[in-house]
Amino acid sequence: MGHVIAIDVGGTHLRVAAYSSNNQAPFKHQRIKTHAPNEEVFERMTALIDAVWPGDVDAIGVSSPGPLDSRTGVVMSTPNIKEWKNFPLTANLMKRFGVPTFLDNDANLAGLAEWEFGAGRGHHDVLYLTVSTGIGGGVILGDRLLQGHHGLAAELGHVIVAVDGPVCGCGFRGHLEAFSSGTAIERHVAEQLAAGRKSTLTGKPSARKIAEAAEDGDELGREAYARAGEYLGIGVANYLHIFDPSIVILGGGVSKSGPLLFEPFEASLRKHVFHPRYLDGLVIAQAELGDDAGLLGAMALARLKIQS
Amino acid sequence: MGHVIAIDVGGTHLRVAAYSSNNQAPFKHQRIKTHAPNEEVFERMTALIDAVWPGDVDAIGVSSPGPLDSRTGVVMSTPNIKEWKNFPLTANLMKRFGVPTFLDNDANLAGLAEWEFGAGRGHHDVLYLTVSTGIGGGVILGDRLLQGHHGLAAELGHVIVAVDGPVCGCGFRGHLEAFSSGTAIERHVAEQLAAGRKSTLTGKPSARKIAEAAEDGDELGREAYARAGEYLGIGVANYLHIFDPSIVILGGGVSKSGPLLFEPFEASLRKHVFHPRYLDGLVIAQAELGDDAGLLGAMALARLKIQS
Repeated sequence: MGHVIAIDVGGTHLRVAAYSSNNQAPFKHQRIKTHAPNEEVFERMTALIDAVWPGDVDAIGVSSPGPLDSRTGVVMSTPNIKEWKNFPLTANLMKRFGVPTFLDNDANLAGLAEWEFGAGRGHHDVLYLTVSTGIGGGVILGDRLLQGHHGLAAELGHVIVAVDGPVCGCGFRGHLEAFSSGTAIERHVAEQLAAGRKSTLTGKPSARKIAEAAEDGDELGREAYARAGEYLGIGVANYLHIFDPSIVILGGGVSKSGPLLFEPFEASLRKHVFHPRYLDGLVIAQAELGDDAGLLGAMALARLKIQS
Repeated sequence: MGHVIAIDVGGTHLRVAAYSSNNQAPFKHQRIKTHAPNEEVFERMTALIDAVWPGDVDAIGVSSPGPLDSRTGVVMSTPNIKEWKNFPLTANLMKRFGVPTFLDNDANLAGLAEWEFGAGRGHHDVLYLTVSTGIGGGVILGDRLLQGHHGLAAELGHVIVAVDGPVCGCGFRGHLEAFSSGTAIERHVAEQLAAGRKSTLTGKPSARKIAEAAEDGDELGREAYARAGEYLGIGVANYLHIFDPSIVILGGGVSKSGPLLFEPFEASLRKHVFHPRYLDGLVIAQAELGDDAGLLGAMALARLKIQS
C-alpha cells in the first residue's frame, strides 16, 4: 500500500500532507496561505502537492468548504474562494497528478475523521456537528459516511426549526444555523444592544467576547449562549429522531464555550427528545482532533474509497 | 432457498403470508381481526402462522406499529395493542417457531417495500413518507435501510419544524405530524368551525369529508389541505438537505388527496430548498403498493437479514 495525499482547503490556509499506509501522523506536511496576489488557488495547491509528493501515491483526498458535489468532485461555490464557481476540482487534480481523487465538504470529513481517529472511535452511528461561524454536519450510519444522491447530504445547519425564525447566512429563514451559530449569537447581542439593552458589552462584539462577558456575569451574554444552546438541543433532538446515533460529537469554536452552551443545550435536548430510549447510553462528546480534522478526514476518505 | 413468513400487525387486522424464494406473490396468505374476546393478540398471530406454515421456513419478518426497537425485536408500546408493553415479539416468535425473526416498524418496512418492489425500484437513496392519521418515515441510503443504533431512526413525523407549533399526537409541540397529518387537518377545521368560521362543513368532519368539501369549493377545506401541504413541503425540504435522496415517495391515505395537497406541497418544497441542485432529477412519486406494503416489507426485511 502506497501513500495518500490529503488536502485541507480553508478560507485562510491551504494544508497538504502525505500519509504512509496505516499511519495517522503525516509523512510530510506543508501549510501556506490560501490566497496570494496574481496566483490562482489551484496553482498554489498543485505546487504544495508537488512539494510533499512521495513517489508512490495511491489516491488524493480533499476537504473543502461547500456547497460542493462529492459525487462529481465539483465545488459549486465557496464564500472564501470566489474564483471557484462550479469548479471541477477532482477532475483537474486527476488530470494533473494521474491518481484517483476524492472530495467532500469539511464538515462531513471532520465527522469521518472523528469516527476513525477521534471521539467517535468504535461507534457505528455518529452525529457530528461543527458549530462555529456556521453550522455543518457529518453523519456516519452503519460505518458509512452519509453523502446522498448528489453528494449534498448532511447539511445539518440548513434545516428549518422555526418557520418564521431569523434569516440564515444562506438567505433562508428559520434554519438551525440562524439560531445557534457564532454569527447568530453575535447578531442576537448586537440587536439587543441596538435596542437599548443594558450590558457590559458594546457595539458588535465577537462570539468570544460575548462568552467572556457571560463568564463575568453579563446577563445578555448568558442569554445569547442560552438561546443558542436551547435551539441546538432542539436540532439535536430532531437528529436523534432522524438518525438515532450512539454518539453526538460537537466541534467548532462555539462548542468550546463550556457550560455556558452545554447546560442549556443538554437541558433542551432532554426536554425535546420524544422517547427516553434515544438517550439510553447516548454519548455526548467534544471533538478531539481540532485543526487536523480536515486533513485526517481527507486521508480517511481517500483510503475508504480506494478500498471499497 | 426456503420460504419466508411475513407478518403485518395492524390495529384492526393481522395478516400473515408465506412467500417462496424470489416470488412477490404469496404462496399462502391469511387475514384475521387483530382482536377477539378472551384471546391474546400473540396467540391469534401464532395460530395464523401455523395455518400458512409451508414446512421449510428460513426466516420470519414482522411489520408492526411502533415505537419499537428493531435491534432487540421489542415492541415498546403501540396504541392499538395495549397488552404489548415492552413485549419481546421476536424472541417469543423465535422460541415458538425456531427460525430467525426480524422486526421493524410499519413505515420503515413500507419504505423498504417501495424500494424493492414499488415506486423506488432502481433508486439507491429513497425518502418514503406515509401521511395518514400520523406521519411515519422509511429511508434507504446507499441501498440500506436506515435503522439507527437503538432501531429508532427515521421517526420523520416527530421532528420540530415550528418550535411553538400545535401539540402532536405524541404530546410534543411543533412536530411535522402536528401540521400535515390527517389528524392535523381535521383539528384545524374543527378549531376554525368552533371559532365561528363559515364553511359547508359542520362539527368534526373527517379528513376525507374535508377533501370532498374542498373539491366542491369549500374555502376552509382548501385552506386546511394547503396548510398541510405547505408544512409537508417544509419537512421534505429539510429531509432533502439531510438525506439528499433521488426519490421522494408519499404513501398513506392523505397522500391520495391529489392537487389539493400536492400543489401547495410542491410549491412549498421548491420555495424552501436552499440549493436547486437537490431538485436535479428528483422524482416525486406516490406509493405503489397500497395495503401490501407491510407484508412485502416484512418479507424483504427477512430476506435481507438472512442474506447479510
